[in-house]
Amino acid sequence: MPGGQIQLAGPLRFDSPLASRFFVGNDAAILVDATHPPSGDVGAPRVFEAAGPRRRIFFDPAKTRAAVVTCGGLCPGLNDVIRGVTMVLWHRYGVRRILGIRYGYEGMVESSGVPPLTLTPELVEDIHQHGGTILGSSRGPQRVPAMVDFLVAHRVNLLFAVGGDGTQRGALAIADEIRRRGLSLSVVGIPKTIDNDILFTERTFGFETAVAMSRGPITAAHMEAKGVRNGVGLVKLMGRESGFIAAYAALASSDVNLVLVPEVPFAMEYVFRFLEERMQRKSHAVIVAAEGAGQDLVGSGGVDASGNCKLGDIGPFLKREIARYSTDSGTPLHVKYIDPSYTIRSAPASADDSVFCFRLAENAVHAAMAGRTAVVVALWNGHFVHVPTEDAVRERKKIDPEGPFWQSVLDNTGQPSPERQ
Amino acid sequence: MPGGQIQLAGPLRFDSPLASRFFVGNDAAILVDATHPPSGDVGAPRVFEAAGPRRRIFFDPAKTRAAVVTCGGLCPGLNDVIRGVTMVLWHRYGVRRILGIRYGYEGMVESSGVPPLTLTPELVEDIHQHGGTILGSSRGPQRVPAMVDFLVAHRVNLLFAVGGDGTQRGALAIADEIRRRGLSLSVVGIPKTIDNDILFTERTFGFETAVAMSRGPITAAHMEAKGVRNGVGLVKLMGRESGFIAAYAALASSDVNLVLVPEVPFAMEYVFRFLEERMQRKSHAVIVAAEGAGQDLVGSGGVDASGNCKLGDIGPFLKREIARYSTDSGTPLHVKYIDPSYTIRSAPASADDSVFCFRLAENAVHAAMAGRTAVVVALWNGHFVHVPTEDAVRERKKIDPEGPFWQSVLDNTGQPSPERQ
Amino acid sequence: MPGGQIQLAGPLRFDSPLASRFFVGNDAAILVDATHPPSGDVGAPRVFEAAGPRRRIFFDPAKTRAAVVTCGGLCPGLNDVIRGVTMVLWHRYGVRRILGIRYGYEGMVESSGVPPLTLTPELVEDIHQHGGTILGSSRGPQRVPAMVDFLVAHRVNLLFAVGGDGTQRGALAIADEIRRRGLSLSVVGIPKTIDNDILFTERTFGFETAVAMSRGPITAAHMEAKGVRNGVGLVKLMGRESGFIAAYAALASSDVNLVLVPEVPFAMEYVFRFLEERMQRKSHAVIVAAEGAGQDLVGSGGVDASGNCKLGDIGPFLKREIARYSTDSGTPLHVKYIDPSYTIRSAPASADDSVFCFRLAENAVHAAMAGRTAVVVALWNGHFVHVPTEDAVRERKKIDPEGPFWQSVLDNTGQPSPERQ
Amino acid sequence: MPGGQIQLAGPLRFDSPLASRFFVGNDAAILVDATHPPSGDVGAPRVFEAAGPRRRIFFDPAKTRAAVVTCGGLCPGLNDVIRGVTMVLWHRYGVRRILGIRYGYEGMVESSGVPPLTLTPELVEDIHQHGGTILGSSRGPQRVPAMVDFLVAHRVNLLFAVGGDGTQRGALAIADEIRRRGLSLSVVGIPKTIDNDILFTERTFGFETAVAMSRGPITAAHMEAKGVRNGVGLVKLMGRESGFIAAYAALASSDVNLVLVPEVPFAMEYVFRFLEERMQRKSHAVIVAAEGAGQDLVGSGGVDASGNCKLGDIGPFLKREIARYSTDSGTPLHVKYIDPSYTIRSAPASADDSVFCFRLAENAVHAAMAGRTAVVVALWNGHFVHVPTEDAVRERKKIDPEGPFWQSVLDNTGQPSPERQ
Repeated sequence: MPGGQIQLAGPLRFDSPLASRFFVGNDAAILVDATHPPSGDVGAPRVFEAAGPRRRIFFDPAKTRAAVVTCGGLCPGLNDVIRGVTMVLWHRYGVRRILGIRYGYEGMVESSGVPPLTLTPELVEDIHQHGGTILGSSRGPQRVPAMVDFLVAHRVNLLFAVGGDGTQRGALAIADEIRRRGLSLSVVGIPKTIDNDILFTERTFGFETAVAMSRGPITAAHMEAKGVRNGVGLVKLMGRESGFIAAYAALASSDVNLVLVPEVPFAMEYVFRFLEERMQRKSHAVIVAAEGAGQDLVGSGGVDASGNCKLGDIGPFLKREIARYSTDSGTPLHVKYIDPSYTIRSAPASADDSVFCFRLAENAVHAAMAGRTAVVVALWNGHFVHVPTEDAVRERKKIDPEGPFWQSVLDNTGQPSPERQ
Repeated sequence: MPGGQIQLAGPLRFDSPLASRFFVGNDAAILVDATHPPSGDVGAPRVFEAAGPRRRIFFDPAKTRAAVVTCGGLCPGLNDVIRGVTMVLWHRYGVRRILGIRYGYEGMVESSGVPPLTLTPELVEDIHQHGGTILGSSRGPQRVPAMVDFLVAHRVNLLFAVGGDGTQRGALAIADEIRRRGLSLSVVGIPKTIDNDILFTERTFGFETAVAMSRGPITAAHMEAKGVRNGVGLVKLMGRESGFIAAYAALASSDVNLVLVPEVPFAMEYVFRFLEERMQRKSHAVIVAAEGAGQDLVGSGGVDASGNCKLGDIGPFLKREIARYSTDSGTPLHVKYIDPSYTIRSAPASADDSVFCFRLAENAVHAAMAGRTAVVVALWNGHFVHVPTEDAVRERKKIDPEGPFWQSVLDNTGQPSPERQ
Repeated sequence: MPGGQIQLAGPLRFDSPLASRFFVGNDAAILVDATHPPSGDVGAPRVFEAAGPRRRIFFDPAKTRAAVVTCGGLCPGLNDVIRGVTMVLWHRYGVRRILGIRYGYEGMVESSGVPPLTLTPELVEDIHQHGGTILGSSRGPQRVPAMVDFLVAHRVNLLFAVGGDGTQRGALAIADEIRRRGLSLSVVGIPKTIDNDILFTERTFGFETAVAMSRGPITAAHMEAKGVRNGVGLVKLMGRESGFIAAYAALASSDVNLVLVPEVPFAMEYVFRFLEERMQRKSHAVIVAAEGAGQDLVGSGGVDASGNCKLGDIGPFLKREIARYSTDSGTPLHVKYIDPSYTIRSAPASADDSVFCFRLAENAVHAAMAGRTAVVVALWNGHFVHVPTEDAVRERKKIDPEGPFWQSVLDNTGQPSPERQ
Repeated sequence: MPGGQIQLAGPLRFDSPLASRFFVGNDAAILVDATHPPSGDVGAPRVFEAAGPRRRIFFDPAKTRAAVVTCGGLCPGLNDVIRGVTMVLWHRYGVRRILGIRYGYEGMVESSGVPPLTLTPELVEDIHQHGGTILGSSRGPQRVPAMVDFLVAHRVNLLFAVGGDGTQRGALAIADEIRRRGLSLSVVGIPKTIDNDILFTERTFGFETAVAMSRGPITAAHMEAKGVRNGVGLVKLMGRESGFIAAYAALASSDVNLVLVPEVPFAMEYVFRFLEERMQRKSHAVIVAAEGAGQDLVGSGGVDASGNCKLGDIGPFLKREIARYSTDSGTPLHVKYIDPSYTIRSAPASADDSVFCFRLAENAVHAAMAGRTAVVVALWNGHFVHVPTEDAVRERKKIDPEGPFWQSVLDNTGQPSPERQ
């Protein structure tokens, strides 16, 4: 049941220093559900607090110290977010002490030995033209008390945590510890998931860039497939638990003939039958697989440093299985396998993602200065909102195999309904 | 007062042939206003009908004939829309007779002498990889009765009108004439405005591509400006009545120092003072002007074939005025003027716009097959909806100079508030 | 000893139909060695016959039948060459029967069952906008007599063989068999090697595009390397026996710290020591390896269908070895491995490669119509020339580890001289 | 009569500090004419001195001071050259004092008031990723004695002059004045002409990038032309006295139907007849005009700050004339005019141009350290050479309207031979 109460780091004691004519009212909110008639109960409508600048704020800009941390894998737009947070804190609120924590949560424990960077407008001015993150990143949690000690030691009042699921859970734990200690410190999350799989945000930054960057490898796979008799172009794209990138990339192209996503299980027989039929009709095929597709087939094991299940690698698995089938069946298939993941996720943000990142950063700063804590900023029903972090991390956003979007994908590729047969 | 009744071409007589598990319910709708508490009256909430496939449809696919027409200036995604409409009609509904009308409404009067193309999946398969429109386009209205005669003569049941404001007004006039004659014919609009200035649609196709394509020229202007002492890079972007492209392009870049949009009037003194100050501080400047900015200064005259006011050309005007100022003031300024409009609007759609176009086309086909007429398909509060055409064309969507978006732009460029001084 | 006699398919019986004022004279030639004083013997200077249109030609255009075949791996520009050959034959010589052989030499034996395409200006008009080859390709030789039978059966007079080393050897064998049978048939080669490793041609088509396309993956590797502590970006690029692509790509970028090429052997110790030093100084590194580098370390086995030695895969080998070293040495290194080969080789040609392909194709047609056979067209000392095929395939062009080019690379990366230690 | 004696700033007193196994011999040279039999006289062959590192050099690296100046319009690769010169001086010769002169020759007269930058490896490391020049540029000559005074005042020994024709004439004048004063100072030119119109260099940096960057606008013109009935896409490209960019761009594309270059005069009647015929056959056309084409028609006047003739603007002239013809003839033509010049010339260098710039810079440094003066570095017959500046500036390189290259262009566009009719 999303749309709960927003936590405040404390009372709103100061007038905003913003030279702005625009402030968001105290009760401004956005409906969680914009459909009509509303589904579910008929009580008071569930809402998210509207994001944006407040007339009254909690922190005194002259004394405020902020910190930004980027965690997990690379994602287009990380530098845009770092830049946006720095620019808005500095130029609009007059905050002059902004730390850039190195190498993710690892840099928030003193033992790491890597001191934070000092972020200034000069330093960040052009960083959004490059992919990656100037701060560096790392995977996995660190001890929460040690991280809060670090914040206290550096006299940080605002923490901006840029990262996925696990990172936001970490941020929530930090916020809880802060409350427990009775500190005045806001923790605001900026959800980062290239897979676009976080709840209650219509889009996440980097996703659109990732879809755009997938076009090249898919075209390459198509050319390679057509370049030989019975060529099979196979592309693995990001998408651990949700197949949005693979599905959007297929929709954005006319060259994909089969999309495999985590949400829709399949048997290898299904793939073989597809290939058999396709080779007879067209002599080539293009397959796009999300990295989390077919995990029941690949097998796997263990857990990575971020606590994510280690996935079996579906790309080489499919390549091997198709080669084996090629030998067994006597139909010689030539599989060309492309894994463009690093090239995609390290790209600079597209223009639209750049704008989105700036606005996310802006709203994150407004939220933090106004004392909101344990929230993430998100786009919902066309508006920027504050989503309680616990709502955002409750589960993943996934493709609904019964919904209109997946139907569009099936129509576009012409693939048979990939039900386990 | 948007959210009125949707017109139907007739009763829903047929079962949908779609091999889909997903159908939209009869009363599914999306709130016009997702904010809370809602602004305005407290009566029944205003809604737009939800778009999507219906279980019962009006037209018999076996007998249906469709036509697509593209009007007005080029816009990234036109071929995606043509392709999407053709693919969904053909593969999902089994419609086999689809006409592509040549050169806009001009091709809908027999006197033009250019017969329509016959659209098939083979013909349209790869067209979205190219910019422009394979059908050609033209500006301006044609006689409505002649166009309806054309539809009758070609036994067309579904007309898909892809175009802006003027085109949709034309489509409404055609729908009215059809009703007057008692014909069974659906007219569904797909709003096309690269400027993103149509009401009740969160985005329009091509806009995002246009913003992305603006980056190159802005970077060029920046390099040219820095390449000489007191260099001024001046870029004109699209935006006749709304400055969204210019504003987004500035937000997506760190290189723009002054944005001029139609919504915010300014005097040349304002520009001169900006330049004076900027040259002293930085020795170079980048200005982005929407084509409709400063029209009270440029002067203009007449009306073009589409009935749009002919704008005076702000780009050369600014270039001239700045050069004049340079001479008068003794500060030598070197203005490098870039007008990338044709290069931008003729580009192929970005990946994200491609997906958006396909989904618009899909929903337009569902709407038309289900007998909806005098509607446009749109994205509203994150959902695809049917907007009565008369709501969509009532006025333009504009930047609110008092709202948070324009404030973001001001913050990002650092420009002084451009009020007439 | 290059620069031998050019073979003729027969006497030059016809006047050229070209509407051109420009013809190449009978004795026009280009020096093999343009340095002064010339190296080597002091006899008559060695020359290559100049390429270009001749006033007198051997084949009667009205009766000529041509065939084009593309062999081996994909390479940017294949479609440009197919298009150029077709356009020049059709529009300039009036040849109306042009066959496009499917799937390489495989399509030249009747048993393959895939008939050739008929090439026309309409068919080829836009193919150069796409990567790959519209004809398809295959690896490996076919029986020479069967291929000559095929040419005879299809009444082909001109064969254009587009391919590497092995393909040109095949073309030579075909030309020999033709001469043995006393047929009037020209075989002209267009050297295709993305590795740029063919002798007596300053550049080969596709190479420049490949270098340009390598930039993205190298930048990605750089971002990934900097994105974590002690990150190592590892990129494998094409280059079986010659490291030109890897070396040029490193020169074109400031991000590469170590280049490994086949011409310069190294021990893993060398790589480890480099990493050790680099991590201490900079905490990240980018390594680019040509696919043929370090083959003595990787081990290998067998021969592929083209008769090329199957290389061991240096990319995964390095990744594994570095990971092992990371464990053993206690310095945790994070290797991100990128293999962009398919994406690079399937790209469309760059503008400059497109022009180069057209001019190669043009000169190949002039050569063939003028009866030259058993030659390849090439660029030498700035001029297009005819190189006897046997000269071209004698050995590979390689980087000279003692020459100025490799010195430039070492200077640019700052890597220690990679001598086996 | 090119290939004259190379001037030396003085005797070669020092051993090279290069850690290189490769040095160029004292008499190493490249033939001016690599054709055979050689055209012209039968005396001793004319040669250019080979470029590259020398074992003995003139300047003592420990005491050397260098300066780099960039003049004239922007050109892709300027930053690559600045970077290359700095890197090679610093890392290979150990030179520690390198000045970057601001805003062209203007920055070499004290009165300009803009002090030079100090160039270091850190400063220049990534500059080649951006277009433009970090030093800024300006047009036009400055007083030669004042510039030599500046060099003396800053104790500069090596001047690297990056610029075109006029810049190299200026460099020659500086070298002459230096000799007159008996100073020990080397002036080495790096020819910069995006038009590729300098004699005795096979290519100039930036040209290839310019051709590549022309593709987008030409495609846009094509799309705009096809987007309306009787559409004419008109693109103006760089090329004041030589039409190489326009001609190469047309060769690299299949969309251009008419190319107009300075070397081939034409009457407007020729253009009108072309359009008449083309509209009847295809209803659209694409025209590419070099900026210097048709100057006898446009009229002009005066001379710019660089001493170049001010050209009349052929683009708007053609647009106006075609519009006038459209009105007069009753054939309505819709002209879409694109001028992409600033966007092209301010782009970063392509990968291949980057490599070329680095190697030019390297050879310029070797030349200067070895005391060569009044020379430019160039690529000739596939080798880097020293060309006496007076040979290089004697006249322009132009397209030969009777030669094979222009014939290729005519064949590719299918345009009638553009002779004045």
